[in-house]
Amino acid sequence: MAQTKVRMAMVGGGEGAFIGAIHRIAARLDNQIELVAGCFSSQAERSAAMAAQLGISTARCYDSYQQLFAAEAQLPPEQRIEFVTIVTPNHLHFPVAKAALLAGFHVLSDKPATLSLDEALQLQALVQQTGLRYGLTHTYAAYPMAQQARLLVQQGHLGAVRRVAVSYPQGWLADKADSDSSAQAQWRLDPARSGVSGCFADIGTHAFQLAEFISALQVTELCADLATVIDGRQLDDDGSALLRFNNGARGTLLASQVCAGMGNGLQISVYGELGSLSWLQEQPNQLLVQMRGQPQQTWQAGTDNSYLAPQVRAWCRTPAGHPEGYLEAFANIYRDFALALRQPTASNLAAGIEQAVRGMAFVQAAVVSSRQNAAWVSLAGQYTFTG
Amino acid sequence: MAQTKVRMAMVGGGEGAFIGAIHRIAARLDNQIELVAGCFSSQAERSAAMAAQLGISTARCYDSYQQLFAAEAQLPPEQRIEFVTIVTPNHLHFPVAKAALLAGFHVLSDKPATLSLDEALQLQALVQQTGLRYGLTHTYAAYPMAQQARLLVQQGHLGAVRRVAVSYPQGWLADKADSDSSAQAQWRLDPARSGVSGCFADIGTHAFQLAEFISALQVTELCADLATVIDGRQLDDDGSALLRFNNGARGTLLASQVCAGMGNGLQISVYGELGSLSWLQEQPNQLLVQMRGQPQQTWQAGTDNSYLAPQVRAWCRTPAGHPEGYLEAFANIYRDFALALRQPTASNLAAGIEQAVRGMAFVQAAVVSSRQNAAWVSLAGQYTFTG
Amino acid sequence: MAQTKVRMAMVGGGEGAFIGAIHRIAARLDNQIELVAGCFSSQAERSAAMAAQLGISTARCYDSYQQLFAAEAQLPPEQRIEFVTIVTPNHLHFPVAKAALLAGFHVLSDKPATLSLDEALQLQALVQQTGLRYGLTHTYAAYPMAQQARLLVQQGHLGAVRRVAVSYPQGWLADKADSDSSAQAQWRLDPARSGVSGCFADIGTHAFQLAEFISALQVTELCADLATVIDGRQLDDDGSALLRFNNGARGTLLASQVCAGMGNGLQISVYGELGSLSWLQEQPNQLLVQMRGQPQQTWQAGTDNSYLAPQVRAWCRTPAGHPEGYLEAFANIYRDFALALRQPTASNLAAGIEQAVRGMAFVQAAVVSSRQNAAWVSLAGQYTFTG
Amino acid sequence: MAQTKVRMAMVGGGEGAFIGAIHRIAARLDNQIELVAGCFSSQAERSAAMAAQLGISTARCYDSYQQLFAAEAQLPPEQRIEFVTIVTPNHLHFPVAKAALLAGFHVLSDKPATLSLDEALQLQALVQQTGLRYGLTHTYAAYPMAQQARLLVQQGHLGAVRRVAVSYPQGWLADKADSDSSAQAQWRLDPARSGVSGCFADIGTHAFQLAEFISALQVTELCADLATVIDGRQLDDDGSALLRFNNGARGTLLASQVCAGMGNGLQISVYGELGSLSWLQEQPNQLLVQMRGQPQQTWQAGTDNSYLAPQVRAWCRTPAGHPEGYLEAFANIYRDFALALRQPTASNLAAGIEQAVRGMAFVQAAVVSSRQNAAWVSLAGQYTFTG
Repeated sequence: MAQTKVRMAMVGGGEGAFIGAIHRIAARLDNQIELVAGCFSSQAERSAAMAAQLGISTARCYDSYQQLFAAEAQLPPEQRIEFVTIVTPNHLHFPVAKAALLAGFHVLSDKPATLSLDEALQLQALVQQTGLRYGLTHTYAAYPMAQQARLLVQQGHLGAVRRVAVSYPQGWLADKADSDSSAQAQWRLDPARSGVSGCFADIGTHAFQLAEFISALQVTELCADLATVIDGRQLDDDGSALLRFNNGARGTLLASQVCAGMGNGLQISVYGELGSLSWLQEQPNQLLVQMRGQPQQTWQAGTDNSYLAPQVRAWCRTPAGHPEGYLEAFANIYRDFALALRQPTASNLAAGIEQAVRGMAFVQAAVVSSRQNAAWVSLAGQYTFTG
Repeated sequence: MAQTKVRMAMVGGGEGAFIGAIHRIAARLDNQIELVAGCFSSQAERSAAMAAQLGISTARCYDSYQQLFAAEAQLPPEQRIEFVTIVTPNHLHFPVAKAALLAGFHVLSDKPATLSLDEALQLQALVQQTGLRYGLTHTYAAYPMAQQARLLVQQGHLGAVRRVAVSYPQGWLADKADSDSSAQAQWRLDPARSGVSGCFADIGTHAFQLAEFISALQVTELCADLATVIDGRQLDDDGSALLRFNNGARGTLLASQVCAGMGNGLQISVYGELGSLSWLQEQPNQLLVQMRGQPQQTWQAGTDNSYLAPQVRAWCRTPAGHPEGYLEAFANIYRDFALALRQPTASNLAAGIEQAVRGMAFVQAAVVSSRQNAAWVSLAGQYTFTG
Repeated sequence: MAQTKVRMAMVGGGEGAFIGAIHRIAARLDNQIELVAGCFSSQAERSAAMAAQLGISTARCYDSYQQLFAAEAQLPPEQRIEFVTIVTPNHLHFPVAKAALLAGFHVLSDKPATLSLDEALQLQALVQQTGLRYGLTHTYAAYPMAQQARLLVQQGHLGAVRRVAVSYPQGWLADKADSDSSAQAQWRLDPARSGVSGCFADIGTHAFQLAEFISALQVTELCADLATVIDGRQLDDDGSALLRFNNGARGTLLASQVCAGMGNGLQISVYGELGSLSWLQEQPNQLLVQMRGQPQQTWQAGTDNSYLAPQVRAWCRTPAGHPEGYLEAFANIYRDFALALRQPTASNLAAGIEQAVRGMAFVQAAVVSSRQNAAWVSLAGQYTFTG
Repeated sequence: MAQTKVRMAMVGGGEGAFIGAIHRIAARLDNQIELVAGCFSSQAERSAAMAAQLGISTARCYDSYQQLFAAEAQLPPEQRIEFVTIVTPNHLHFPVAKAALLAGFHVLSDKPATLSLDEALQLQALVQQTGLRYGLTHTYAAYPMAQQARLLVQQGHLGAVRRVAVSYPQGWLADKADSDSSAQAQWRLDPARSGVSGCFADIGTHAFQLAEFISALQVTELCADLATVIDGRQLDDDGSALLRFNNGARGTLLASQVCAGMGNGLQISVYGELGSLSWLQEQPNQLLVQMRGQPQQTWQAGTDNSYLAPQVRAWCRTPAGHPEGYLEAFANIYRDFALALRQPTASNLAAGIEQAVRGMAFVQAAVVSSRQNAAWVSLAGQYTFTG
């Protein structure tokens, strides 16, 4: 029923912000969330324009996120927002999340969670103190077949994992002239707004999170070789790393934004002692499983494929053969976050505060390693990990 | 702005109706349509339950579609619905559409448009008389790359079309026991609710419409060999046909619902004098183009692929590499229908009343041909076609 | 041991003849056959040039096939050829085969076997009278995974076959200017050398043979719509047909040589009551198997894939992952023909005299049907079939 | 003409040796080479059995390779062998090659060329001194589309290369019990016969060579993390490395033989400033090219594809759509080696003595790096490179 929709505010996502529009579609798709308030831009006029476009009342379109949380906290419980979704450039993820938590609101944040590991640890402490929910939009782990891949590994289907290969070659920053004229490219490559890393913070974190998610392992140490391929940039736009996992498995991670012609080709293979699997984001409804001595298998997403795990089928909306995509994966995060607020035990969040911390540990370790000419750097030693 | 959303009623789509839920997601996805009224089931209680779930006021949840149109017509123009979407079993498509048009409401209907060609011609006359909009949800033609395929053909990229091959093998009715226990299977195979054809009315129409849509041609005659593979069924569950097109090209059409293991594998190839193209619904973001003497090309959907036609890019929501799927294709129909009501000249409807008529002409011709042991039957001769 | 090699003569295959060179590689590949004699061209000089190039003694390079068989028959048994391979244009297949059989030599012939069904029946009678071996180079059925597909069907893995779809779109005759300047194109389109059909005799026969081979069924009747797309040609260059099989299954067959941009995309799907399979000649080492309610399977060729049938593994030379192709499929025919001569019971010929007759029955039925505007024409009624 | 065939001896390749049989097919396929002598096994009886099977005269089946070269050198020039092909386990590659060169015979050798870099450098010196030809059977670089890939890079089609990713996951040593019972596995994992490395010497060298071949670059330094995944083995069976190239590009290399279920999935991507390309050995006839802002392209092997470079078309035997595979790639090496002996300037050897040296430098650098916990190790500094 309409009155049961979860009430959400958005910070960021003004006109022209690619990812804000995506988040709104995702939040809307399953009809369980209502966007009732927001601060869509640091420029009041732009924010108001977006609010008008979205049918949000003027009263709940705020000039700043501080004001948003203060005002909403004063509203009656049945009117006030329940959570905020943060879709700003990176440098604002932490302050907005912190303010929201302190004001008593749950948080769903774009990644990376913060600008640094230290901030991530502060955030983790705050989440623990407040007991509020914190979700991170690692979209790729929210695809049904990524979830099925994780389950196959967790259930021992592949035997011990021996090797993980994750690769994320993009091309959208391949050309200097193009990126110089793109607002998104500019903040992605600006240390003040993106932190210590460009490419590795932006998409390396996705690759890393997916590797840990599907392998059900943790990276213990890495050696990374980051590069700034295009002269004049201040952050990495390319890099790769060797990984070691907590069960002794090894891995490789590649993330680049200067591979001309490449779209969004995130892919991962997990190789085990009994079999191996591969998943490609650009063909997300298929999961390739290759068991020793058997024909290759292609597992297909779909509500009606009874061989899929029940929780995987629940993450689909359509029967097999009716492709779902990126927006549905994104919507799974919103749907699950709404579920987390209504039925906490039923939720199955792909990424939360622990992944926020691990992601920043990864970014920081990669940068430290690269500055030491790809020396091994431990992830485990850098922070008090409580998982 | 919120007040500009197009107001919609739904007829059909109660709890458990697969396609109703799909339509609602599609209508909601782009935030341009508001579902404000409905008659979701012939059983008042079930209808009310769905209305409650959707947050529709009790007052606008109606006991019958007749009542719906009568009552809505009495509401002030700024409140009343603007169009109805029809998601019932086939036999109700025509009466509901007719009642809506007579009451002054635009219509978006699931396919096939009617139970017979005669009904389709009546409907066409009514649409012409009322000057109202009529849209048909031929989802597959609403995928961006199907649209791009059509444009390539229209622009002469392939030269003269010589041959069209369209194939739609499904397996969901492959097993008698399964289908006996499925409500959807039951009405699909019931002449009273599905008309003169089962498989060809259900998915043959999709294949036919896509063939005409992409080839930018019209089928002039066909010879069809329909089958009822599983004993005891009253309608065809399988069939194929030879086609002849109005430019002299030839074609084949296969539609079956008894091909065990097959999902929703609609695919089409258009072969021309300079090159050929292929599109597979299960990999909808790619369009394969094979020009004579050149490397094969794979055209990719995406807002940022500048080689795509502008109207194709407008049918995408995400950059290349972020897959869109069936729900987005469906949403394109809703978005375009909303556009048709607001800015009629900007609309680009994949399927309307002409496709409704042609679809029923196709079904009727196929059944007639098959009853005559696959004799050639003309489509052109069966109705006054005004396109 | 060298002396055990099977001694072969070749008729046809002079310099520049594409298929002759292919046959020679195929015969040579497994080292079981020795090319010791030949008549490579009707022009003595061209024939001698090829013999010299191949290291064949002048004495055994003959001016005519008649002379070849006469002279070889006079040689001591341990020297004389054991079989002839016929790689001429179509019109010579029958007279050369007939002469060889009458002279006591086994025959391996390119397809189609003859120019007409009547010739094929004469040939069949001759094979039966002489007790000699007759093989037909239907290469595509000699791929290991085509053989595995047939076995899956024969073993009931798919349950009853319900539908067969076979498609063979080529583009090499798409352009008039191109084909006017091609010697091969000229004889393919010349009734005197190709018989009553162009495209259907050339590649339609492949599609038909593969359909019967893999489905393990026989086509009982067909209705065909042949076309001469490019003006001025005397034979069909394009066509399609509806098929009915002896178990009640239905099918479609498409063969065209005017689909610009298409290479050699023969593909077949067999749809059954429990599952379906697909095989594409351009990806020959994979066989897609889709069982109801299970993940899709991709069966892979390879000597080491223990899930393959033993006779399929025996048709491979390399372990899985080391692709074999067209030349190896062709070599399988030669290897098996050599085996047939040495250990007749071990041979597993994909195509022999029965396929020769059926192939010509198919061509003739298709032409007759097409001339009657695609009326149904029976294959069974056209000849005394003894299989 | 027969008398122009190049005369070859084989060392190694007795009954049951997988790769020996492959080499013989490859040498035979194009009819330009004659196997006239050999020493197929260290056991005289096994050697004789193979000679008999191959039709090689007893006189030219030798008990040792030393004897072979000594005896052949005594034969008249027009009879004696011209080159030897070496298909033994690794430890014999160098002594046999050395003996052959000293006896005045050209050498074609399986890879890796030697057991150590030092041996490779000795071999290089010997090749230079003798002026004889030395070829290395890096099969994958001999596929036509790998050659086309290299040409695209060399011609600047992709702009500057920025990143190379090469991956070679196999599974044939994934299971201890399996490998314990395999003769090939035993010598591959035996330091006395395989040298300092198992997996990296066996297939890492292929990956490395292909990376340098296609990128047209040289690796200057690497850091490698090798592993012995299965207890009790003495050599690496898995590993990965970060690479740096001489133009500043970076790369990753993965080679493993313990990835259960994987066949022979060598694949490579080269990412550049204008576009990127990918090639997969298991689909060898396609080359994927993705230029910035254009549809993806799939370049297809085939004698008739005029967009391919002439030397690439010359490496094909069949028109597009008739797949060639591993044996044809292997045969390209033999064909080209024969050409090198007849028309040295026309030859286009994919791999020779320089690749032999670089391959061993790679193996040695990887082992050294791994023993130093993946420290960077320079390849350039380890030997006097004269290329």
